[in-house]
Amino acid sequence: MKAIFERHSYRGAYLQEAVPRGDLKRIMEAGLAAPSGCNKQNPALIAVDDPELLARIREIMQPPLAETAPALICVLTRRKIAYRDGFGRDRCFAVQDYSAAIENMLLEIVHLGYQSCWIEGHVTDADLQGERIAALLGVPKETHDLVCVLPIGKAAEPIKPVKKRAFEERAWFNGYEKE
Amino acid sequence: MKAIFERHSYRGAYLQEAVPRGDLKRIMEAGLAAPSGCNKQNPALIAVDDPELLARIREIMQPPLAETAPALICVLTRRKIAYRDGFGRDRCFAVQDYSAAIENMLLEIVHLGYQSCWIEGHVTDADLQGERIAALLGVPKETHDLVCVLPIGKAAEPIKPVKKRAFEERAWFNGYEKE
Repeated sequence: MKAIFERHSYRGAYLQEAVPRGDLKRIMEAGLAAPSGCNKQNPALIAVDDPELLARIREIMQPPLAETAPALICVLTRRKIAYRDGFGRDRCFAVQDYSAAIENMLLEIVHLGYQSCWIEGHVTDADLQGERIAALLGVPKETHDLVCVLPIGKAAEPIKPVKKRAFEERAWFNGYEKE
Repeated sequence: MKAIFERHSYRGAYLQEAVPRGDLKRIMEAGLAAPSGCNKQNPALIAVDDPELLARIREIMQPPLAETAPALICVLTRRKIAYRDGFGRDRCFAVQDYSAAIENMLLEIVHLGYQSCWIEGHVTDADLQGERIAALLGVPKETHDLVCVLPIGKAAEPIKPVKKRAFEERAWFNGYEKE
């Protein structure tokens, strides 16, 4: 599982090389293989490699985090209720479901020699960039939200891992802060 | 990335074989290697392999989904704000963060020859099983929530994949339901 430890959020420029459809399909298959709460399979995916459409999406995305990427995958979700708990509270795992799908895709992207970055905040901030991208792609607003954009391409710049806290500060055995 | 396609939610019995500490550590390292919104590193993890503690956790967990597992990993989160968007709305990605960490751990679990199942609904339902498990483990209630339990062990029964919808129903190119 090298990809797990080699995956880093890449915010640099991409080489201008098309991503083959077979690779985009494989990445999306990895996303759809993720688990989902009560098997609701909430996430849906749209890969974009059409240059005209990419240009129109780039006009919407601020800051321009995916400006040079030759392909993108847009992540859609449906906020379906998984079940009602014993106390009458509706449970929905749409965020968990699309997050697991995104992580699978990021790993498959790295495994295939590409880079990416989980772009969600800017897509779902109150300026509604995601809604405008969804409209461009013909996504039905009533049922689906566009929550994330993953740029995909080969890195043109060095990959810079972020600094993470030590294992001992975040993981323990048999009790909080133990061992 | 075989593990992505070989991972299935396993709800059967586990063999009574201890999981070596080195494997539990590697699984937690995989979880901590996941990305987190604005690198907030919200998730924290507690592996449980102490038989007495396992027995007390099993008394809390209903339905008994992890009854025979020789080890568990409990997933904690802190609901930290990542940033305030341009419209004064606080953004928190704690759910995304722990979901990506869980997916990484599930993949590493399968890669190492074990099985698991993402147990979250029953842990965070209104009967607060997660809160009771957290109390057992000495987790500070003010800062951390226990949101998920992952059983870990070798399968004693056949693995049964769930049925998933076809690729064409969930993934497209250059537009919703296109190609």
